[in-house]
Amino acid sequence: MQIERLCIVGLGLMGGSLALALRPFISHLAIVDTSPQTLAEAQKFADLATADFAEGVRDADLVILATPVRVILNLLTQLPTIWPDGCLVMDLGSTKTEICQTMEQLPSTFQAIGGHPMCGKETAGFDHAEPGLFVGETFVLCENGRTTPHIEAIAHQIIEAIGAKPLNLSPQIHDNMVAAVSHLPYLVSAALMQTAAAQADNQLWQVSASGFRDTTRLAGSDPQMLLDILVTNRTAVTDQIDKLQGQIIKLKQLLLWGDETEIADWLAETRRHHTTYRKVKQQ
Amino acid sequence: MQIERLCIVGLGLMGGSLALALRPFISHLAIVDTSPQTLAEAQKFADLATADFAEGVRDADLVILATPVRVILNLLTQLPTIWPDGCLVMDLGSTKTEICQTMEQLPSTFQAIGGHPMCGKETAGFDHAEPGLFVGETFVLCENGRTTPHIEAIAHQIIEAIGAKPLNLSPQIHDNMVAAVSHLPYLVSAALMQTAAAQADNQLWQVSASGFRDTTRLAGSDPQMLLDILVTNRTAVTDQIDKLQGQIIKLKQLLLWGDETEIADWLAETRRHHTTYRKVKQQ
Repeated sequence: MQIERLCIVGLGLMGGSLALALRPFISHLAIVDTSPQTLAEAQKFADLATADFAEGVRDADLVILATPVRVILNLLTQLPTIWPDGCLVMDLGSTKTEICQTMEQLPSTFQAIGGHPMCGKETAGFDHAEPGLFVGETFVLCENGRTTPHIEAIAHQIIEAIGAKPLNLSPQIHDNMVAAVSHLPYLVSAALMQTAAAQADNQLWQVSASGFRDTTRLAGSDPQMLLDILVTNRTAVTDQIDKLQGQIIKLKQLLLWGDETEIADWLAETRRHHTTYRKVKQQ
Repeated sequence: MQIERLCIVGLGLMGGSLALALRPFISHLAIVDTSPQTLAEAQKFADLATADFAEGVRDADLVILATPVRVILNLLTQLPTIWPDGCLVMDLGSTKTEICQTMEQLPSTFQAIGGHPMCGKETAGFDHAEPGLFVGETFVLCENGRTTPHIEAIAHQIIEAIGAKPLNLSPQIHDNMVAAVSHLPYLVSAALMQTAAAQADNQLWQVSASGFRDTTRLAGSDPQMLLDILVTNRTAVTDQIDKLQGQIIKLKQLLLWGDETEIADWLAETRRHHTTYRKVKQQ
């Protein structure tokens, strides 16, 4: 690892798992977080744990921003004042277009690359962080006007160290893709939860089983993280909602007026898509 | 157990798990299935394994029908001819209104009760059956015109033996509830799968993570089982689709025109509903 002094800002599930995974490779690890409890945890393994962004990033070779998206945007604008000499910056934010645009506005003393590890868990926060979280998972990298071959190489070293698989995408393509496979699934999960809750008594929950549990899991996601995602990816997300609406309208027509062969064909096609997707994931 | 001779028809995930769970309590267990491989498996633990429905139900104290819904409907109409003296009948079908109506048309020599264990797994078939599948899960019972105190008591003995929790519901209320917490989740999962597949290349699947995997899990469900469910519960299912549509339209408006406070409120409300549901389930 060419990095000796690393600062991770935001010790949640992602930042925390990255901190634990990279700890063996780093001689000086600084953690910045606003929660006193999280900082107390950080002190057990970090060389510096502070709520002060400026103190944390001082002398860091690389700063990794692992907070909700709009906090990342805010921290990026603070960097030139705090650290005029520049440094390497990477982030783990869930949407990439606005972050990469803001990275491009950093002075040329900075080198920056967007990052997004494509993994998650039912549970958020550092309590659930684990160094193996990224193993075998895709780690998206988004180049922008501040990306140099040097920071690109550093990012690849990090991805290799944590056992993930790099995938370079443009910020816009990334944001369109996550709208389809991450943000829309959340919204669908939430809509399903709201639909059931509007009719629910305790008996309804008793009748629900693992299918309901799994399809509504994302409805329990952190509202702050989601607000930032939805607000910074509004166009791609509403476009995906329109596409889903089209599928649901088609499906309702099929159930109301379709003959059995048509319904059976649709069910079989759905399962074929699912099988294809699972095969690709297991490769 | 007051039952000595039991016949289970359909050795899939449900029928198979029930057969394994009840085996220790039953002196003569007959299995009926159409698959030669499944019958070969059944021979390892059953006293009789046959593809002939009439042979299987002969001399049974209790017949449990554990096939797709419309196969259950068909088998129920065959029973009076096969077994004029009558017997006890229960089923494990996923929708209950049509099944209970058909049970009511059995001669009065029959005693019958509808049943539906509210549990499932990602994987179907006897290969994935396990005797512990029902432990702690809700087992819905639907009384009908052929339900007697005797078969009701037998059903409760079975539910106790397999470690499940009985819940009496009318067939119509059951079907409305499962439309909300089981059939709609499937359709939403399928619509999400179809929406993503329509845009997919291998990169999209690489970018997808556990959230997509869990929300689309049900899209891999057995098409034959689902066809029977959707066709026998069409009205309740399309009613649930309308309710979901309402939520999605509201959500899209919120994203397009809502201010941040409104979006944040909706996200927080969604998580509160999820928390309530999970608490009830964990009781």
